[in-house]
Amino acid sequence: MDKATLQNIHNRIKPYIHKTPVLTSKLIDEICDANVFFKCENFQKMGAFKMRGAANAILILTEAQKSKGVVTHSSGNFAQALSLAAKQIGVTAYIVMPKNAPQVKKDAVRTYEGIIIECDSNIKAREDEAHRVVIEKGATFIHPSNDDNVIHGQGTAAIELLEEYPNLDYIFTPVGGGGLLAGTLLAAINFSENCKVIAGEPKNVDDAYRSLISGNIEKNDSTNTIADGLRTHLGDRNFPIIKKHVEKIIRVEEDEIIYAMKLIWERMKIIIEPSSAVAFAAVLKQKSEFKNKKIGVLISGGNVDLSHLPF
Amino acid sequence: MDKATLQNIHNRIKPYIHKTPVLTSKLIDEICDANVFFKCENFQKMGAFKMRGAANAILILTEAQKSKGVVTHSSGNFAQALSLAAKQIGVTAYIVMPKNAPQVKKDAVRTYEGIIIECDSNIKAREDEAHRVVIEKGATFIHPSNDDNVIHGQGTAAIELLEEYPNLDYIFTPVGGGGLLAGTLLAAINFSENCKVIAGEPKNVDDAYRSLISGNIEKNDSTNTIADGLRTHLGDRNFPIIKKHVEKIIRVEEDEIIYAMKLIWERMKIIIEPSSAVAFAAVLKQKSEFKNKKIGVLISGGNVDLSHLPF
Repeated sequence: MDKATLQNIHNRIKPYIHKTPVLTSKLIDEICDANVFFKCENFQKMGAFKMRGAANAILILTEAQKSKGVVTHSSGNFAQALSLAAKQIGVTAYIVMPKNAPQVKKDAVRTYEGIIIECDSNIKAREDEAHRVVIEKGATFIHPSNDDNVIHGQGTAAIELLEEYPNLDYIFTPVGGGGLLAGTLLAAINFSENCKVIAGEPKNVDDAYRSLISGNIEKNDSTNTIADGLRTHLGDRNFPIIKKHVEKIIRVEEDEIIYAMKLIWERMKIIIEPSSAVAFAAVLKQKSEFKNKKIGVLISGGNVDLSHLPF
Repeated sequence: MDKATLQNIHNRIKPYIHKTPVLTSKLIDEICDANVFFKCENFQKMGAFKMRGAANAILILTEAQKSKGVVTHSSGNFAQALSLAAKQIGVTAYIVMPKNAPQVKKDAVRTYEGIIIECDSNIKAREDEAHRVVIEKGATFIHPSNDDNVIHGQGTAAIELLEEYPNLDYIFTPVGGGGLLAGTLLAAINFSENCKVIAGEPKNVDDAYRSLISGNIEKNDSTNTIADGLRTHLGDRNFPIIKKHVEKIIRVEEDEIIYAMKLIWERMKIIIEPSSAVAFAAVLKQKSEFKNKKIGVLISGGNVDLSHLPF
């Protein structure tokens, strides 16, 4: 993946995404003893960076493919992202979701005119259901994180951040399925001199951390984290990029995630979701290591259920 | 008050305040059928526009006055604003607060090195106590809203908004003590061709609305509103400006305030306090009247107790 190709991808999706602002806070800089630049994808369309990858994955299809629609399985931000990107581009989006997914998630997808297909709440059921849609409708399956075009799209957030602040020493992202982390790595390699990329991961679902150690894609026994966007595991498209280029993965406890989230809400007056707080919690956890550095933090999204807050 | 004087005031306080961003939302524009420009004073230093008036009121003092400090009575944002502005300028701030004020409010003042003086929880006690500080310490009393320099300082938020968007048809502010509304009126008169200013007020504390009708400063029997910054009444410095220039005051119900607040949290991913939501609730309430108009909304602040949310 070279710089010109990434730039073309960025240009292609620009009409469908927001260029999100980069915010700073004197108080947070004082706490961290560093300069922290928050790339605010919580202000992205539908409230998360996932819009970027979804738009790219649809735009790259042929007209014949577009006419038959796209399908994914997700009950999270990618469900909304694919629905909205598809709507904007004029494509049908089929979203496979567990029957017991929260009503608020289903409503959000319907707002963006995604067609919800319900399935049982297990991995085999949702994969089978998505496969059925591919066969019956001729729709193209787009994985939320383990898809080259999705990965490249997600990388455009870091491209914008590095275009605005070319001298960052580090970029921190959360890691869940690995799409954002892999895309950010490709951006950092191509758009900076020597910017290192570090991921934050909840200790309770530290599959990516363990995957780096074992060299294989590890999975989680538990999904017990407030950072509900990070419960998934890496895939064969993004793991090789992560394994080769990531500086390290810092694991954080649940209370550290909640503390970081609350700090940003209270001090920066912006709403970020728990998964986003994981990256910043990683900075806080090892801040002595990053003293006086210029640190980008990818605020991945802001979709929170306000009636179920952890504080 | 002429344009050049207001501009001088703005220039004087600039080193002590943030130029806050103006945010827009396509979705909110669709809901309102208008173009809405949110001036985000929730991103102001200490989290509210009050920083502007406090800074101006201190900067205008003589060196002799500054050396003896300033005093106010407030348990809200002005307490924090005066403390932080005084700290930045190198002046002592005495803050008279009821004994039973929430600990979180006291802590915030102490963070900014304000000296808290506790009193009983009634108007006479706090006025007496502030008066005592004026006599004993020689400190200058600065009222949170009924003070010319405070009013002029608060007006600089609208100056920034109109410099960025000179063609606004309306600016909406909340009205409580009247400082922000009066300052905004002076700004609109001097910095726009024909921008009208409308205030939102909680129906449960509609003293300003009734004052416009009676021509006298009315008070509230109840303080029963979630918009805790708007429970106070107008004063003799700001009421004449408001009476002469305000387009009208729109009263909103408590559930309309909460709805407007939640809409902004969920859709714009920014944290605003209930008092700020009152201005936007007024737009929503009579939106048919403002169809296709360009509307500025002053988001007055973002200081919320996250453990006591109305949703």
